[in-house]
Amino acid sequence: MSDPEAFLAAAAELLGTRGLTRDPELIEPWLTDWRGRYTGRALALASPASTAEVSALMGLSARFGIPVVPQGGNSGMSGGATPDQSGDAIVLSLRRMNAIRRLDAQAREATCEAGVILQTLHEAAAAEGLRFPLTLGGKGSATIGGLISTNAGGTQVLRHGSMRAQVLGIEAVLADGAVFDALVPLKKDNRGFDLKQLLIGSEGTLGIVTAATLRLLPALADRAVLWAGLGSVEDTRALLLHAESRAGSALEGFEIMPRHSLEAVLAHVKGSRSPLQGAHEWNALIELAADSEGAAALPALAQDLLESAFEAGLVEDATIAANEAQAEQFWLLRDEIAPAERALGPAMQHDVSVPVAKMAEFVAAAVPQVEQRFPGTRAVAFGHLGDGNVHFHVLAPSGAIRGQWEEAEGKSISAYVHDLVTRWGGSISAEHGIGQLKRDELARLGDPVQLAIMRRIKEALDPHGLLNPGKLVP
Amino acid sequence: MSDPEAFLAAAAELLGTRGLTRDPELIEPWLTDWRGRYTGRALALASPASTAEVSALMGLSARFGIPVVPQGGNSGMSGGATPDQSGDAIVLSLRRMNAIRRLDAQAREATCEAGVILQTLHEAAAAEGLRFPLTLGGKGSATIGGLISTNAGGTQVLRHGSMRAQVLGIEAVLADGAVFDALVPLKKDNRGFDLKQLLIGSEGTLGIVTAATLRLLPALADRAVLWAGLGSVEDTRALLLHAESRAGSALEGFEIMPRHSLEAVLAHVKGSRSPLQGAHEWNALIELAADSEGAAALPALAQDLLESAFEAGLVEDATIAANEAQAEQFWLLRDEIAPAERALGPAMQHDVSVPVAKMAEFVAAAVPQVEQRFPGTRAVAFGHLGDGNVHFHVLAPSGAIRGQWEEAEGKSISAYVHDLVTRWGGSISAEHGIGQLKRDELARLGDPVQLAIMRRIKEALDPHGLLNPGKLVP
Repeated sequence: MSDPEAFLAAAAELLGTRGLTRDPELIEPWLTDWRGRYTGRALALASPASTAEVSALMGLSARFGIPVVPQGGNSGMSGGATPDQSGDAIVLSLRRMNAIRRLDAQAREATCEAGVILQTLHEAAAAEGLRFPLTLGGKGSATIGGLISTNAGGTQVLRHGSMRAQVLGIEAVLADGAVFDALVPLKKDNRGFDLKQLLIGSEGTLGIVTAATLRLLPALADRAVLWAGLGSVEDTRALLLHAESRAGSALEGFEIMPRHSLEAVLAHVKGSRSPLQGAHEWNALIELAADSEGAAALPALAQDLLESAFEAGLVEDATIAANEAQAEQFWLLRDEIAPAERALGPAMQHDVSVPVAKMAEFVAAAVPQVEQRFPGTRAVAFGHLGDGNVHFHVLAPSGAIRGQWEEAEGKSISAYVHDLVTRWGGSISAEHGIGQLKRDELARLGDPVQLAIMRRIKEALDPHGLLNPGKLVP
Repeated sequence: MSDPEAFLAAAAELLGTRGLTRDPELIEPWLTDWRGRYTGRALALASPASTAEVSALMGLSARFGIPVVPQGGNSGMSGGATPDQSGDAIVLSLRRMNAIRRLDAQAREATCEAGVILQTLHEAAAAEGLRFPLTLGGKGSATIGGLISTNAGGTQVLRHGSMRAQVLGIEAVLADGAVFDALVPLKKDNRGFDLKQLLIGSEGTLGIVTAATLRLLPALADRAVLWAGLGSVEDTRALLLHAESRAGSALEGFEIMPRHSLEAVLAHVKGSRSPLQGAHEWNALIELAADSEGAAALPALAQDLLESAFEAGLVEDATIAANEAQAEQFWLLRDEIAPAERALGPAMQHDVSVPVAKMAEFVAAAVPQVEQRFPGTRAVAFGHLGDGNVHFHVLAPSGAIRGQWEEAEGKSISAYVHDLVTRWGGSISAEHGIGQLKRDELARLGDPVQLAIMRRIKEALDPHGLLNPGKLVP
């Protein structure tokens, strides 16, 4: 049986007034997710300052039966860090644990506490001539703990992989308060199950990540950013293969967007202009990058890529950003797609993936299928072609009422898109995770064998269901 | 209760005479591990021809309570594929499942059944202008399923990672016969726990890997192999950092060996000669490699590395293999260390790792410590410096009797070495796995929190303990 009052008394003694609050005003900002889709209630907000405090707090949680919702920067996309309506749980914020414990420039490793903000790590690495090779829009709020718990992606996955690929070691507190300590990075270690991998992407349902050792890379010395106009999505795929073969490991990013998305951005962002003269059905944004070793060769590499793509008839038109300011402008056109489309009216957004080799084919097939099935809608697919990760947005018919349409036709559209993706062997969550947003869809569409294993592992590591209840595991 | 006779009758019906045998002569070769350390007994040898048959067989195993010992090429180093003495279990050989189901040169992926031999995959990839970037001494016998189940390493981990890094998708049969199907490779997929990672390296204790989708890379066009003589193990570390900074992603291998090991090889291998004139306390073998894009730059890169290392005072002497035949000779000197030392007398071999940045320091400290603690022994450390993976061998005093010494002083030496490695934050099994060989040591030295999680996961996925009992999980 749970005993909230006894828990709160013990937790207050453990954490002090800075570490535990029941003040509704102080708690309130952390009860709604970043997208504003979910608002919950909480018994209290705990902000422990150390792994030892997290461990002791989880011990109390186990003893008194109090569920715990871990939270990092509260900028997740699936409501994974927002408590439910019951008010039974506490929110456990990792924000006070924000020390970079160690940054070893020679070994190219940083050991960060869970609350370190991504941008802070970027800056710390840059000060040592290094970089942390993962970035995303929310870098000013996203924390290392949250990025690990959601196995975050971003725009550099093509070359460097998602968060999983950056984690060399991990420290986490388990449901019973025990500390799982695997922070010391071993490049080779075959002592059984790789438990670190199980915690990455588990959205706080198996343990609370308190620190991690992350890999760093040499800083980039220069980049070349190209913009290409193409006639079809199949051509974007051909251009990707061409770019991979020509640029090899210098290929840092490859994003695609359809004509509609670019036009929406141009209409939405004041003073923006298209990199190319004419309009093209598809656009590709390509970034090549190199550290100091390869920087000198970069301009020639970009030029060669451009010319050979023209010669091979892969592009209708293309250009290279003349300077860093223009490169930033090219990227802005990509980054503003979501806000620009939001301005057009309600839309259902889907963060899905299919096998990389099939993404162009999928987009070509799925867009007309969705638009035919739901007359008046417009389907728009853009994103990380090199990762097989499509942001598949379906815009409402004109006249649809925001807030109503999503709950009615919107829901059927999402189910339809998820069905489609599943039939293509894809994933209903490429990078945003499951959280509370997609838990029912995972239950509906997930492989029963895989769901059964997930439930058994959850039961084994958190038998009383205290870690982030109602998230991820259906 | 187990019912062997009912099981055997049903299994015989399921698999036919090619798929199931009780003939002791046919079973006998598979009852002893490759190193000849363990010999067990088995109820029968099952050789299913398909995933469906493995699934049905595991269903029978669950129904009749019969333990199953999965086996690939039977060339593991830790007795992980050898049944115990009870004779209660069957050996489940995956050798008949040896089809490469799909090899997609454009997507650079191969889907292989578990019984595909590593060498066969190398050849199939080469036929398409590609390569599979993992190799090791046992490539003529090791199977894909065994390599995955043990998360095998080899000589290319420095650049390409161990087997875990090569696996894009996996198919496995679970304890209850259910098929876990995650063969379709998705570069981004955040639908919860990454169960594939849990199966990799689990030594058949959580499921039986029946197939996998593996990544392929462009074939190598050329390589440059360097040999350097150095004054100390600390200097080998400095040379590694220098090589990483100069050669970047062209650095394919970096192996080190002490003077004693080289001399043992030169005495053991007829007609072999040292690449350098004088004797040096330490030797480094460096391989640079490039695909067709980078091949032209390789000779200059090797020359630059050599000259800059001389200038920086990092090496006493160094040379570049003049041709491929000489490159092979350099590698032969490395590959023959283990046989050469075996010829000198009994030795205790330890496959351990420490953090990469600490390996040189560890070797410098551990060698004299072991030799002082066990007078008359000689400690020799060699191996994959770039991976922090040391083959730490302790040679018996002269006069020690093979077969007796190992069981007496040898055991104390191994415990001492494992204690030492654990104190350095290292692993008692860098690449060979735990199997039955190191299970007691894992129980003695493993982190109790990690061992408890392993046991709970094992219990959750294999509640009746039918999958490879007595292995890995203490």
